[in-house]
Amino acid sequence: MRHIQIVGIGTGNPEHMTVQAINTLNAADVIFIPSKGAAKAELADVRKDICERYVTNKTIRFIGYEVPSRRTADRSYVQGVDEWHEEISAIYERLFLEHLAEKERAAFLVWGDPGLYDSTLRIIERVAARGNVPLDYGIIPGITSIQALTASHRIPLNLVGKPVQITTGRRLAESFPGIAETAVVMLDGQQAFSKIDDPDAYIYWGAYLGTKDEIIISGRLADVSERIVSTREEARARHGWIMDIYLLRKGQDFDDRT
Amino acid sequence: MRHIQIVGIGTGNPEHMTVQAINTLNAADVIFIPSKGAAKAELADVRKDICERYVTNKTIRFIGYEVPSRRTADRSYVQGVDEWHEEISAIYERLFLEHLAEKERAAFLVWGDPGLYDSTLRIIERVAARGNVPLDYGIIPGITSIQALTASHRIPLNLVGKPVQITTGRRLAESFPGIAETAVVMLDGQQAFSKIDDPDAYIYWGAYLGTKDEIIISGRLADVSERIVSTREEARARHGWIMDIYLLRKGQDFDDRT
Ligand SMILES: C[S@@+](CC[C@H](N)C(=O)[O-])C[C@H]1O[C@@H](n2cnc3c(N)ncnc32)[C@H](O)[C@@H]1O
Ligand SMILES: C[S@@+](CC[C@H](N)C(=O)[O-])C[C@H]1O[C@@H](n2cnc3c(N)ncnc32)[C@H](O)[C@@H]1O
Repeated sequence: MRHIQIVGIGTGNPEHMTVQAINTLNAADVIFIPSKGAAKAELADVRKDICERYVTNKTIRFIGYEVPSRRTADRSYVQGVDEWHEEISAIYERLFLEHLAEKERAAFLVWGDPGLYDSTLRIIERVAARGNVPLDYGIIPGITSIQALTASHRIPLNLVGKPVQITTGRRLAESFPGIAETAVVMLDGQQAFSKIDDPDAYIYWGAYLGTKDEIIISGRLADVSERIVSTREEARARHGWIMDIYLLRKGQDFDDRT
Repeated sequence: MRHIQIVGIGTGNPEHMTVQAINTLNAADVIFIPSKGAAKAELADVRKDICERYVTNKTIRFIGYEVPSRRTADRSYVQGVDEWHEEISAIYERLFLEHLAEKERAAFLVWGDPGLYDSTLRIIERVAARGNVPLDYGIIPGITSIQALTASHRIPLNLVGKPVQITTGRRLAESFPGIAETAVVMLDGQQAFSKIDDPDAYIYWGAYLGTKDEIIISGRLADVSERIVSTREEARARHGWIMDIYLLRKGQDFDDRT
């Protein structure tokens, strides 16, 4: 039996690390580190910074591995994701066989919380299900980009007693405006907010949250939508990549008192 | 100007504390601690444990204060909450005037994340808006009970590319089953799940998450619903209180590949 821990590392600020995450990393024999493309060098830097600051156990082996990119041509979104998980799970299987002895402990560093729009858990489940490498695994929660967003804007996630929808850019139109009073939108490459025409909607937007490059903009959607689009475009060009998230809201606390 | 930090402390496990939360507590002049009723002594113990473990700055003053209970008779839910916030904000105002000198820093310890179904931020906003005590404030994110739930069950929060609804027991019927494929339910004193009759629904339930008394149950809702109701009732009687949360799901990853 090999032991795998999927460790949430927060979203940009190394101080998002929890005591549990730090202790779990230090209890590992091996830490697996993805080698991402150069474009996301800043993200690799956050991982490196976290290991340098918090991993005090000098016997830990750091093992790098390549992450293939997801193919999107001639297949549906879910087919592309499914194939990509299959491909990575074969890579993980080899990693475990080559670099992790039986009974040893390994850790993966996962951006944010491992439960939120992340594949690592599903890929580990595939390796476990295949049965070639007997393993057990655990999850250590981490601060999500949702929490980094609301903290930076100093807003609550929900209105008093009201629900919140977490969704993606491609699905936003299904829920906001209309169904959800609060929608948090992640994984939006299309700026879905800019297609919403609602005079009562407010937006709280953030990019590179937790990092030194953090940008936040908020206001009435109709007033700030264009500014967000241009700020986003400019920042993406400058960095070569962007990670952004936003919260849309209609209504306010206690507006349903009757 | 007085400085107030609203610090998320995680949900039961003291190791949920982030480095940022620890540093923020240690930078405070005063930490305000609510004196809760005896029933929730275990929660007060988690706060105490956190302060003992992580607050190393011995000059910090700990100031206790009474939290009134929310009145519910002869008023709507939101009216009750609104009045309660007003009452507590007057208490906070007095606390700041009596125990915090100008330019000093204070911290409040908030269960989970301050953005998720918590009033502290709204109450501080009221104090600030009233203007009698000039202050600024910040939020430090913390691990939520949602993350503790999914980590303990080792499940992802969302299906691949799909939305998630966060809601309350009183609102659950509006979204699940029907609209949401994943619903996370908090603040449910009525066991709203037990009224759902759907053969395809799965439930992942947890109580006292992160603590030594943690209980989790999962399975097809129709199979485990009664067991959850009886386990919950028995645990609540034994402890004198309960905090529980659950995730309901229909469907699975990649079931929409066509
Ligand atoms: C693949 S998901 C991973 C989410 C991550 N597991 C979490 O807990 O936040 C990536 C998306 O998360 C959001 N995101 C993650 N980190 C962010 C950051 N530091 N600033 C802004 N958005 C971020 C963006 O919406 C991005 O498209
Ligand atoms: C007033 S809300 C506060 C939520 C908190 N701010 C958070 O981030 O989780 C209280 C609700 O949170 C959930 N909850 C909080 N801590 C929990 C725990 N340790 N175990 C199970 N449920 C918990 C329950 O649904 C409870 O009714």
